[in-house]
Amino acid sequence: MNTTSGSFESIVARFACQVHWGDCDPAGIIFYPTYFKWMDSATWAFFAHVGYDPKRMKAENLAMPLVSAQSEFVFPAEQGDRCEVVSRITRFGGKSFVVNHEVVRSDGTLLAKGAETRVWGRFASGPGTPLKGEPIPEALKALFRAS
Amino acid sequence: MNTTSGSFESIVARFACQVHWGDCDPAGIIFYPTYFKWMDSATWAFFAHVGYDPKRMKAENLAMPLVSAQSEFVFPAEQGDRCEVVSRITRFGGKSFVVNHEVVRSDGTLLAKGAETRVWGRFASGPGTPLKGEPIPEALKALFRAS
Amino acid sequence: MNTTSGSFESIVARFACQVHWGDCDPAGIIFYPTYFKWMDSATWAFFAHVGYDPKRMKAENLAMPLVSAQSEFVFPAEQGDRCEVVSRITRFGGKSFVVNHEVVRSDGTLLAKGAETRVWGRFASGPGTPLKGEPIPEALKALFRAS
Amino acid sequence: MNTTSGSFESIVARFACQVHWGDCDPAGIIFYPTYFKWMDSATWAFFAHVGYDPKRMKAENLAMPLVSAQSEFVFPAEQGDRCEVVSRITRFGGKSFVVNHEVVRSDGTLLAKGAETRVWGRFASGPGTPLKGEPIPEALKALFRAS
Repeated sequence: MNTTSGSFESIVARFACQVHWGDCDPAGIIFYPTYFKWMDSATWAFFAHVGYDPKRMKAENLAMPLVSAQSEFVFPAEQGDRCEVVSRITRFGGKSFVVNHEVVRSDGTLLAKGAETRVWGRFASGPGTPLKGEPIPEALKALFRAS
Repeated sequence: MNTTSGSFESIVARFACQVHWGDCDPAGIIFYPTYFKWMDSATWAFFAHVGYDPKRMKAENLAMPLVSAQSEFVFPAEQGDRCEVVSRITRFGGKSFVVNHEVVRSDGTLLAKGAETRVWGRFASGPGTPLKGEPIPEALKALFRAS
Repeated sequence: MNTTSGSFESIVARFACQVHWGDCDPAGIIFYPTYFKWMDSATWAFFAHVGYDPKRMKAENLAMPLVSAQSEFVFPAEQGDRCEVVSRITRFGGKSFVVNHEVVRSDGTLLAKGAETRVWGRFASGPGTPLKGEPIPEALKALFRAS
Repeated sequence: MNTTSGSFESIVARFACQVHWGDCDPAGIIFYPTYFKWMDSATWAFFAHVGYDPKRMKAENLAMPLVSAQSEFVFPAEQGDRCEVVSRITRFGGKSFVVNHEVVRSDGTLLAKGAETRVWGRFASGPGTPLKGEPIPEALKALFRAS
């Protein structure tokens, strides 16, 4: 067991999405910020899956703002393509964590792979008020651990 | 004075915008929801212009949610086009108001014309809490009146 | 048979969607242009459903640019809400048609209702080249007719 | 002269932008894919600045699709913030290049810094047709070289 690296064996989540007309640009392929929108949605869906759905996040003043995000674009998606964002958590730090995402087309083609680094935080008193990072509870990490 | 119609002689605001690559779709022209994003931004800029900027709106728990929106699309905008949204308030009701918008290209070509109907409202205690419509203060209306 | 009104008994299409974090604004509810994005996607899905999928539309140089769009916003959607856009064609004119849309939350609550007026057109030689309206083929209309 | 690294002394471009209501999320701060939209727009504006405006790019069937993109988010932007994307090209490879971007608020605060890696390519015969990478002409590189 490697306690120093913080690497993590995660369950895997799948977020279904589709490329729409308005997600594409004049080159006829997906406009790249669309991938980041999907990754954001996939992370929220992942947290909902383990019990932290939007209503709970809001009720408990929880947030998970971004520290950084990156993606490689492997193959261009086109209008109508059905895809899945396959997500796992690859690292839990003290107050931050990393979510890896692969965007895969329904025929198995890898379209993009990226990662988000996020902080686990809490609003002083609701959205729009100051946000402070918080130690990630062990109970939260356990929800994502592959058994 | 016409108290029945509620029609209004408004000052005119101009919001500068430009068509970007990601605002266009595979037909090579502007994706139509972009016009509504511009109209929304133009209304916020209009209110900022008369003293109700975003920080004040937030500090006073004010909001202006939509009742309806519509637009005609007259001529297709293309990437690089520089435009202005020309806005005026055409009606103040008790708790709602109508903003008319014309989107005009830098050479004077009319691209779109639309309107938003909005409610003047206040959050119970900040964004995300319940919102209730409020009578529009005469002092607010006065700020928009053409002298 | 009513040849003057152009009104039309249409089949009904259902397009599934969900409100994501990035679809919402600082008021904590859906940002209204999102509804128009959904209506656009719903229309494309409707045409795909009757055999005019994106690949065919592109191969045959077909397009359906907007003449106008409008929507009433009945009840605010929030992050996580699962919805359906329920669409039907309410009018076929010579070269244009009207698609009505209702956005309904999974519990049956009506969130928005709107309409798009579109032209049936063809690019001279592919996306980005001039587009001309075309008479809507009777065979196309027939695909949408409720039997 | 360092011919191995491919690093490059670039002119600097500045792209003005502002945070709008619809660019923000329920946390009341900018939704992070907005930064990538700005970086994309800034790159297009940079190329327009040196003579490759959208009309020329389209007329010559040129494109610059993404290989990868990344950003660090340093300080949260809020509605109304006026910003600049400060861009420079940090590397020209054979067929690809890297654009670095810093997003700076009007008071000098650094909000985000990121990079895009792009391919220089040409459509076989217009948008939507196959795209192939091309050697970047020396004359193009020269347009970006700080003198």
